[in-house]
Amino acid sequence: MWNSRKVGVLGGGQLGRMLVESANRLNIQVNVLDADNSPAKQISAHKGHVTGSFKEPSAVRELAKTCDVVTAEIEHVDTYALEEIASEVQVEPSWKAIRTIQNKFDQKKHLTKYGIPMAEYRELVKNTPEELADIGEQLGFPLMLKSKTMAYDGRGNYRVQKKEDIPAALEALKDRPLYAEKWAYFKMELAVMVVKTKDGVLSYPTVETVQEDSICKLVYAPARNVSEAVNQKAQELARKAVAAFDGKGVFGVEMFLLEDDSLLLCEIASRIHNSGHYTIEGCALSQFDTHLRAILDLPIPPKSLELRQPSIMLNIIGGATPDSHLKAAEAALSIPNASIHLYSKGAAKPGRKMGHVTVTAPTMHEAETAIQPLIDVVDEIRSQRSDVKTKPHKSSPSKPAPSVAVVMGSDSDLKTLVPGLKLLKDYFEIEHTVEITSAHRTPTYMAEYAASAASRGIKVIIAAAGGAAHLPGMAAAHTTLPVIGVPVKGSSLDGVDSLYSIVQMPRGVPVATVGINNSVNAALLAARILGSFDPTVQRKVEVYAESAKNENLNLKGTKMRELGWEKYFEQMQK
Amino acid sequence: MWNSRKVGVLGGGQLGRMLVESANRLNIQVNVLDADNSPAKQISAHKGHVTGSFKEPSAVRELAKTCDVVTAEIEHVDTYALEEIASEVQVEPSWKAIRTIQNKFDQKKHLTKYGIPMAEYRELVKNTPEELADIGEQLGFPLMLKSKTMAYDGRGNYRVQKKEDIPAALEALKDRPLYAEKWAYFKMELAVMVVKTKDGVLSYPTVETVQEDSICKLVYAPARNVSEAVNQKAQELARKAVAAFDGKGVFGVEMFLLEDDSLLLCEIASRIHNSGHYTIEGCALSQFDTHLRAILDLPIPPKSLELRQPSIMLNIIGGATPDSHLKAAEAALSIPNASIHLYSKGAAKPGRKMGHVTVTAPTMHEAETAIQPLIDVVDEIRSQRSDVKTKPHKSSPSKPAPSVAVVMGSDSDLKTLVPGLKLLKDYFEIEHTVEITSAHRTPTYMAEYAASAASRGIKVIIAAAGGAAHLPGMAAAHTTLPVIGVPVKGSSLDGVDSLYSIVQMPRGVPVATVGINNSVNAALLAARILGSFDPTVQRKVEVYAESAKNENLNLKGTKMRELGWEKYFEQMQK
Repeated sequence: MWNSRKVGVLGGGQLGRMLVESANRLNIQVNVLDADNSPAKQISAHKGHVTGSFKEPSAVRELAKTCDVVTAEIEHVDTYALEEIASEVQVEPSWKAIRTIQNKFDQKKHLTKYGIPMAEYRELVKNTPEELADIGEQLGFPLMLKSKTMAYDGRGNYRVQKKEDIPAALEALKDRPLYAEKWAYFKMELAVMVVKTKDGVLSYPTVETVQEDSICKLVYAPARNVSEAVNQKAQELARKAVAAFDGKGVFGVEMFLLEDDSLLLCEIASRIHNSGHYTIEGCALSQFDTHLRAILDLPIPPKSLELRQPSIMLNIIGGATPDSHLKAAEAALSIPNASIHLYSKGAAKPGRKMGHVTVTAPTMHEAETAIQPLIDVVDEIRSQRSDVKTKPHKSSPSKPAPSVAVVMGSDSDLKTLVPGLKLLKDYFEIEHTVEITSAHRTPTYMAEYAASAASRGIKVIIAAAGGAAHLPGMAAAHTTLPVIGVPVKGSSLDGVDSLYSIVQMPRGVPVATVGINNSVNAALLAARILGSFDPTVQRKVEVYAESAKNENLNLKGTKMRELGWEKYFEQMQK
Repeated sequence: MWNSRKVGVLGGGQLGRMLVESANRLNIQVNVLDADNSPAKQISAHKGHVTGSFKEPSAVRELAKTCDVVTAEIEHVDTYALEEIASEVQVEPSWKAIRTIQNKFDQKKHLTKYGIPMAEYRELVKNTPEELADIGEQLGFPLMLKSKTMAYDGRGNYRVQKKEDIPAALEALKDRPLYAEKWAYFKMELAVMVVKTKDGVLSYPTVETVQEDSICKLVYAPARNVSEAVNQKAQELARKAVAAFDGKGVFGVEMFLLEDDSLLLCEIASRIHNSGHYTIEGCALSQFDTHLRAILDLPIPPKSLELRQPSIMLNIIGGATPDSHLKAAEAALSIPNASIHLYSKGAAKPGRKMGHVTVTAPTMHEAETAIQPLIDVVDEIRSQRSDVKTKPHKSSPSKPAPSVAVVMGSDSDLKTLVPGLKLLKDYFEIEHTVEITSAHRTPTYMAEYAASAASRGIKVIIAAAGGAAHLPGMAAAHTTLPVIGVPVKGSSLDGVDSLYSIVQMPRGVPVATVGINNSVNAALLAARILGSFDPTVQRKVEVYAESAKNENLNLKGTKMRELGWEKYFEQMQK
C-alpha cells in the first residue's frame, strides 16, 4: 500500500517533529534517529526509533535496517555513513547532494558550474594573514570570512570590516577550512522552498526573510514590495539551483536581492527549512507534507503549493531564562489568526529556536498589524538577554499599497477632484495615490503609468479631464483595470465636450463615466467597486447611503415641514 | 506556566487524536484513557496515559489522579464517575451537561425549557404498540422512533413510515428507553460548532452537512445558498442552545433548515464533532485548538474562528475490505488543495470512520470542482459494500452563483444588449443573470431586485434603458454595488436623452455610464471590475485587448497596405 513504506530520519529536532506531524496524518511510520525523548519522538509512539546521534555511523546503519527511505532534517550528517547505506536503502536527497551542500565552498563551486549567480568568492589554502590580505585586495572590504563546514545560524562566519581585522578573524575561525566571500550589499533577503520530485522541480512562493543575530527572525509570504519580474527571477533561480543536485525532497534556497533588482544565491539547504514553516498554515500542503511525498514518490498537485493567504512567520527564540520564550507563546494566544508551534525542547538557552508563530490574514497589511504586538513582546524578551547588545531589527506594519489611483490631466482639474478625494481619504479611508499625467503633454508617462498600475496593486483608476478629454480613455487603452472618467467643465460648451470625449469610447475600451464635475460620484463608484470584494468598504457605502437618506428625510424634510417652504426658502437665500 | 496543566481525555479515537495534535503544538500534556495504542496515544509518547475504557469508573478515577482537567471525546461516558471525580479535578464540560445531552430525551426536555425550536416529540413509557399508535395519531406518519440513550450515527433510530411498521420498530429498538419525534421535512441540514468559554459563547461559521447511511458524509463551509438571515438565525440558535448547558469546551449543534427557512434544532453534541473537522484547515484555530483553550481558560481571539477560505470536508469510510479506505486516501493525494487526515485505526470495518479529507479554495465552486473526483471514488468504494443497498447521495458541483446581473427596462432594449451578453457568456464565461425590470412599470420589484443583489453574490449590475432612462440610476439608489448604465438610443433625440438621464446623477449615487448603445463596453467594464480581483478574468481582458490590437495592426493594417485604400474601400462597400 502507498503508505506502508517506512521513513528513517536523521535528527529529531523541530524539523523532524514537524515532519512526523505530516507523516502521522498519512499514517506513515517515521523512525527517528536521535536521543530518547527528542522533540520528534515525543509525538511518535512506536518501537521503531533508534537512540543515538546522526553523526555516528553505527547508529545510521542501525536506522537503515529499520526503514525503506532515509532522509535528514539537517545537513551536518555523516555522509560517508549515508553513502554506505545507500546500497541497501533509498537515501533522499542523495548523499552526494548533502555532501556537496554541507561544505559551503563545494556548494558554491558546484553551483558556479551551473551558472548560478553568487557573490564572488576565493578559497583560502594556507589560512595566513598574507593570503587573506591578498584576497581582500581582490574582493574589497568588508568581506565575509566563512568556514566551509559546520556553518549555520551565523556560526562559522566572521565579518572582516577592514584589513586590520584580519588577525582577529583568522583567530576566531582558526583550525577551520575557510573561504572568503565578497560583501553583498542587498536590500532584501528572499527565499524559495523547492520540492524536487521524481518528475522535476516545484516551488513555493517567493518569501522575504528577516535575520536577527544571524538567525531567521521573520518570514513574510509573499515577499513585500517585490515586482512580479523579481518574483519570477527568484523562482527560476531557485529551481535551477536545486535542479543541479541529485535526489528528491525539499530544499531551501536563500537569496540576496540587490539594489538594482538583481539576485545572488546566498546558500542552499538540502532539507526542510525555517523559511518554509509558513507553509503549514499558508499552503494546502506544507513543506513537510511535500518532502514526505517527494521522497516516497507520492503525487503533489502543484496548486497545493500556492499561498492561501498572506502569512507572516515569527520565530520564538530562547531568552534570558529557561522559560521566557513561553511568555512569547502566551502573548501569541491573544493574537488574531495566530497559529502557535512549540517544539517541546525543554528548558531554553538564549538564542535557541523554541517555537514559531504564523499569522495569516486576507491582506499582508492585516497580518502585519495583527502580529506587531507579538513582535514587540519578542523584542522585549530579546532585550533582556545578556548575550546580545544590538538593537532589535525594527519591524512595523508597512503602509498598505494604494488600491485607487487618481490622475488628472492638469492641476486645474484638482479643485474639481477635491470633494471626491476628501471622501476617499476621510470617509472611506481607502489608500490612494494622486498624479498629474496628461494624455497630450506626457503621453508616454501616462501610458506607462496606466500599464503598470495593476501590477502595483491598483484596483481602480479615476481619471479627470476637460475639453477634448482624452486622459480617461487613453488610460483605459493602456490598462485592464476599470477606469472611472470625470468630465471636467471647461470654459466653453458647459462640459458637454468633456462628457462626450469620455463616454463615447469605441467598442473595446470602456470608461465608466460619471456626471460632469461629479468627483464625489467617482469616489463613491470606486468605493462600490472595492466594496463588492471587501465587506468593510461595502458597509461604509451602505452607511453613506443611509445618512444621505436621513439627511433628506429627517433633517431637511422635518425642517421644511416645521418652517413651511416660504421661510425655508428665505433661509436658503441667506 | 500557562501550558503546564495536564488534560485528561476520556476516549482516544480520532477526536482524541486530533485534540492531541493541537495539544502537542502547545506542549500541553494530554493523558488519554483508552486501550493501548489507540489512535490518540500513537502520537503522544509519554507515561501519563491510562489503559482501560471510558466506561469503567475505576479507570476514570485513575485518569483523574493524573491530570488537572478532564474532558471527553464522546458523550457516552460514565457521568456518575465524572460526578464523583468532579470534587477533585475540573471536569469540562460539566458532568451535568454530558448527562443531560447523552440522553436525547432529557436533552430535548432541557432545551424546551430554554425555548429552543425542535421537532415535536413524545415520551414512550410503556413501549407498547398501542402507546406508539396513539403518539402516531398525534404526530402523524412518518415519525422517528428513537432510543433515548446510546444513539449515534443512525444507531438507535427507526423510521416508522406508517402505522403498520409499529411492531417492527418496537422490535428493532426493544429493551431501550424510547421517545418518538415528528418527522422534519427539511431541505438542508446545518451545523454550527460553538465554543463555550469562561466568558461566554463563540461560534464558528454555519455549515451544511450531508448525511449518508445516517452518518456524516460531507460538510460544506460555509453552507451553500443560505441567506445571511438564515445564517444569523442558525448562529443565534446554536449559541442560545449551548448557553443552556454548564461547563466549558466545544459543542456541536445540528439543525434542520425547513422549506420555509425556519430552523429546528436536531441535536447537540457536548464535544468536538465531525461537522467541525473543516476548521483544521478552514480557520486559524481549529475546534480542537479552541476546545483545549476553552477548558484551560486560555484566550481565544474571535477572529481566529472565521473562515479563511471556503472548505469542503469529505469523510473516508471503511469499505468492503480492510484497506479499501486507503484507496480513497490515495486518490486524495492527487486532489489539488486537499489535506488528508487518516486516523490510524488499523483494519477498517465497513461504515467505520477511517479518516477525512478537507479541500479549500478561493471559491466554493472551485472547491466543489476539485473534490468531485474524490467523491466519485468514495461512492465507488461504498458501492462495493454488501451492507448498503441504497444509491449514494449524489453530489455534483453546484452552478457558480452569477456575479453579474444584467437588467433592462423593456425587452426592446435586449437587441442592444446582445453583443455585450454574448461577450460575457462566450468569451469571458462570466456567470450572469438577465432580467426585465422597469423603474417605471415595476418600481417595487426593481427596488427589491437591486437591494438584494449583493446578498445573492452579485458583484456588478449592468442596466440598460432608453429615453427618460431611470433604471440604472434607480438601481444604483437601491444597492451598494457598482451599476453600469447603458444608454439606449430611442426614436428621438439620438440617445442624448438616455445618456444625460443616466450619467448626470446627483452627488451620492453614481452610475458608471458607457457610450450610447455600447453594451460591449458595459460587458468589458464588468469584466475589468471582476478582473481587478480575479487574475483569470484579468488575463482574459488582457488577451481581448491584444487581439483587438492585432486585428487593427496586422489584419486590417496589412490588408490596407496590400490593397491600397481605394480597393479596401471598394471591398468595404460590398
